[in-house]
Amino acid sequence: MSESMGNLRRTHMCGTLRLENEGQEVVLMGWVQKRRNLGSLIFVDLRDTTGIVQVVFDSHVSQEAFDKGDKLRGEYVIAVRGKVHKRQSINSELPTGEIEIFVEELKILNEAQTPPIYIKDDDDVSEAMRLKYRYLDLRKSSMQNKLKIRHKATRIVREFLDENDFIEVETPILTKPTPEGARDYLVPSRVNPEKFYALPQSPQTLKQLLMVAGMDKYYQITKCFRDEDLRANRQPEFTQIDIEMSFVDIEDIISINEKLIQKIFKDIKNVDIQLPIKRMTYEEAMERFGSDKPDLRFGFELKNIGDIVENSEFKVFSDNIKNGGEVRAINIDGYGNEFTRKSISKLEDFAKTHGAKGLAWIKISEEGVTSPIAKFLTEEELNRIIERMNGKEGDLILIVSDKSSVVFNALGSLRIEVANKLNIIDKDEFNLVWITEFPLFEYDDEEDRYVAKHHPFTHPVDEDIELLETAPEKVRAKAYDIVINGDEIGGGSIRINNSELQEKMFKALGFSMEEAWDKFGFLLEGFKYGVPPHGGIAYGFDRLVMLLTDSDNIRDVIAFPKTQSATCLLTEAPTSVTEKQLDEIHIKLMGNKDVEK
Amino acid sequence: MSESMGNLRRTHMCGTLRLENEGQEVVLMGWVQKRRNLGSLIFVDLRDTTGIVQVVFDSHVSQEAFDKGDKLRGEYVIAVRGKVHKRQSINSELPTGEIEIFVEELKILNEAQTPPIYIKDDDDVSEAMRLKYRYLDLRKSSMQNKLKIRHKATRIVREFLDENDFIEVETPILTKPTPEGARDYLVPSRVNPEKFYALPQSPQTLKQLLMVAGMDKYYQITKCFRDEDLRANRQPEFTQIDIEMSFVDIEDIISINEKLIQKIFKDIKNVDIQLPIKRMTYEEAMERFGSDKPDLRFGFELKNIGDIVENSEFKVFSDNIKNGGEVRAINIDGYGNEFTRKSISKLEDFAKTHGAKGLAWIKISEEGVTSPIAKFLTEEELNRIIERMNGKEGDLILIVSDKSSVVFNALGSLRIEVANKLNIIDKDEFNLVWITEFPLFEYDDEEDRYVAKHHPFTHPVDEDIELLETAPEKVRAKAYDIVINGDEIGGGSIRINNSELQEKMFKALGFSMEEAWDKFGFLLEGFKYGVPPHGGIAYGFDRLVMLLTDSDNIRDVIAFPKTQSATCLLTEAPTSVTEKQLDEIHIKLMGNKDVEK
Repeated sequence: MSESMGNLRRTHMCGTLRLENEGQEVVLMGWVQKRRNLGSLIFVDLRDTTGIVQVVFDSHVSQEAFDKGDKLRGEYVIAVRGKVHKRQSINSELPTGEIEIFVEELKILNEAQTPPIYIKDDDDVSEAMRLKYRYLDLRKSSMQNKLKIRHKATRIVREFLDENDFIEVETPILTKPTPEGARDYLVPSRVNPEKFYALPQSPQTLKQLLMVAGMDKYYQITKCFRDEDLRANRQPEFTQIDIEMSFVDIEDIISINEKLIQKIFKDIKNVDIQLPIKRMTYEEAMERFGSDKPDLRFGFELKNIGDIVENSEFKVFSDNIKNGGEVRAINIDGYGNEFTRKSISKLEDFAKTHGAKGLAWIKISEEGVTSPIAKFLTEEELNRIIERMNGKEGDLILIVSDKSSVVFNALGSLRIEVANKLNIIDKDEFNLVWITEFPLFEYDDEEDRYVAKHHPFTHPVDEDIELLETAPEKVRAKAYDIVINGDEIGGGSIRINNSELQEKMFKALGFSMEEAWDKFGFLLEGFKYGVPPHGGIAYGFDRLVMLLTDSDNIRDVIAFPKTQSATCLLTEAPTSVTEKQLDEIHIKLMGNKDVEK
Repeated sequence: MSESMGNLRRTHMCGTLRLENEGQEVVLMGWVQKRRNLGSLIFVDLRDTTGIVQVVFDSHVSQEAFDKGDKLRGEYVIAVRGKVHKRQSINSELPTGEIEIFVEELKILNEAQTPPIYIKDDDDVSEAMRLKYRYLDLRKSSMQNKLKIRHKATRIVREFLDENDFIEVETPILTKPTPEGARDYLVPSRVNPEKFYALPQSPQTLKQLLMVAGMDKYYQITKCFRDEDLRANRQPEFTQIDIEMSFVDIEDIISINEKLIQKIFKDIKNVDIQLPIKRMTYEEAMERFGSDKPDLRFGFELKNIGDIVENSEFKVFSDNIKNGGEVRAINIDGYGNEFTRKSISKLEDFAKTHGAKGLAWIKISEEGVTSPIAKFLTEEELNRIIERMNGKEGDLILIVSDKSSVVFNALGSLRIEVANKLNIIDKDEFNLVWITEFPLFEYDDEEDRYVAKHHPFTHPVDEDIELLETAPEKVRAKAYDIVINGDEIGGGSIRINNSELQEKMFKALGFSMEEAWDKFGFLLEGFKYGVPPHGGIAYGFDRLVMLLTDSDNIRDVIAFPKTQSATCLLTEAPTSVTEKQLDEIHIKLMGNKDVEK
């Protein structure tokens, strides 16, 4: 049985009623959260998006409503008309807990079967069930809150950028495949047989062309797409706050973005971010924290001890250094006593999952220095290491000897692992840092050439331009990332606006100009006709919202997310399509599926 | 040669300088619009997104700047530092025309080749050139203005909806193919071989599920996609303002949307829209204007003259009526003398392109009544037709006899054609009307069954529900369109929230419940667990912006539009992809292209 609302029109939202509404006649609509039948009275917790209020069916007020109220079950959708009364027994846990509604009229707008998951925040149902019944999962106030904060964050970003004369310009979703990037999602064209659109990995080239077009200050909050294997907290489609500005250098972009970030944290978390946000070069971040997205909420910094052990009898160290490797260490200072041989052995296992071949350690306790490698080192070497690491009683020094990238990765990950295990990270702290002066290139072993660390249009640091041809690995980029608590939330760069420099860049990447034109022709063509100095930044909005909502699962901040196998458990997308549909877009299936069977 | 900005930082935007800035030192950056060399002085019109200002190179101020200024060409990007002077000869056509800048320092930030299209609003270059060099086309102030108004419109919409407690929720772009709609763009899945995502034709089902989720008031400004053959002013991807509300009926939705529309027109066009906006049923719109999106800025209304001629000797009329057809007419009252036999013959050709087999007419002039069909009609019939059409001297009555749909289409189109030819439409008027009570179904000749005119979840008008099984063609829908000057700008409906009614609806559409579940299973599943009454609307945002910017080409309000063959002339999307890319997504080409060769 479903009734229509008839003449009833909602006058208030459930969660907004207070003692000052006492005596008013109200019409409320929502879902039955809970019903208790106490003989002559029926109590119902009525829920809408603003919260819960208690409504009471009393046969003395309305026998008809009371009889109907007796039929209510969880998640029925109802409309009630009644008067606001002061409550006898106040429920201090509800904002509406001082009042209740005595129902004079009830309409059952829609019945409900028993839902397969509970509508309560602490339900421990599987995530698969939550995603399949997303419309039930989203009834939870915790989930609605996340979506509301997400909405509020976009409002704040838009208001700030609007006030600063940025124009939001929409760029196409059906666009051109990206050379030199991640894998594209492709869309076969029906009208243009055997041709394909790609969904954009970012609006990078088009936003640069908007600068060429003189749009001056652009932004867009838009979907981007990458068909990559999904790690935790990655989604096939994600939302980006995309910004580009003309006639600017690094300082201009950092300056306005700091104000934006400050405003977001103030308005949503009531957290004051001090400006200027501190900065750290890529080199310093790697040296001190083993990561270009360091979590600065705790110490345990890396130190190089290579010079101490380069001639050591301990060949694990000295041979590694002779082969171009490094030996670095961190000091878990003050927490040494928390670690036993067994727990240190677990840390070694952890380091191994990050590529290290082993983990050396030195523990300093009341009883003196304990270390499995002590016997291989001279006393002077051991003492110098302890001195370098400021080792004192109660400390634990962890050492990794390997090639540079492994040392950074293993120790960088270890310091976070240890801090998490020790539970010493202040969850309420937001520690922000700009990482600057990234390398312009990184070596791609697979392709056996340098590739652009950001993209091929990133401007080198001015004084490094002369190194482009002689020592590309030393060239730093005018690129910057904003890192919060060890998460990279955004990043960008100043772009090249000079065709000679762009040519040098392509040469360093190993492209002939012909190849470059083949890949980036329309951008290069545009760059002939007067390009302003420009640069920008893009924020991973989903990850920012995770931070703002204290979520550790990206799917909690997206209304209809996909699983790690890129499926939607609600709609069952992707699905099979018909032969006719494939014919129309001029493709056929490879039959891989059968092969795999 | 390109210089960097060095220490120069922009202090002002070109178009904002006024007499009150006299004496200030300013730094401006922008493009050279024009250069004139007057011997000892060089004048340059410098352009940025805010407008144009005159800068002057005078060797007495700076010989170095003067010498460099001599090298400037059109579209060079420059930075100038100099003082604001009052101008000798005021240019009253420029907002900055009372001042000019005497340049003390010039930096040429980027040179430019001669651009292939002129950067001026009235350039009559081909649209293909404009699209290929879009970054130059967008330099025109008229084009930048359209994008700025587009941005402003989204701001107004968002502000209004935010203030009214709507939450913007993003729905996925990679989603499930739509049953019962237009053709989808399909995206092959790599991770799930032989499965496909579809790009959304609209967020319809997901926004309904957000109502099931209790989100209460939703909106989204989002891209939608339809792989249909492109008519003028259609794009493969288009932007929709999508709105859905719970616990509402038609009046609630119309009421809030009227306020939204009023605000948009006030804030952007400074036009006052009187509320309530007038309403017209679908039936009245068809009867009077032959269209469900009538342009009400002029008359020439349709009238039925079938009863007058149903027994006429003139078999063209009477046989048509006997066969179920209709005879209707419009009176081009007061403009009859503007039409000659020849121009009426052109109107007949026009009517034929809209399906009519011919066009009968009666002209009333000083000399009396002229009509090629007069000889087939009795005098009484002729007089009664003239009387019915309020015919008087100076009028021209146009008559179409055909099946109903052709009569409406031909006369509905003719009245617009004639009004345009007569140039009697007030371009400054905005005439808005809600069209209501659409038929719930329309007959699909191809499928030989009724299909939903809007979609299968549209709620019937309450008193017509009983006709669902007996006379579906008579059932009206709780659907509404907002029509402005003959353009449908938005439309929506109240949705079914009752599973019994939904079953009846599917039955009327000829689906078994099994088929219905197959097509809409996840929505139907969601509808088991408590569905609020809900409804919504969606606006075609591109078309709204066309109205707001007086554009007659949809591509003028989109930064990077596609052609009618769905290609992007700038990026050349869609393009070929590699075998490897196809392998990864488990498809191969059909080779149709070869077949077509």
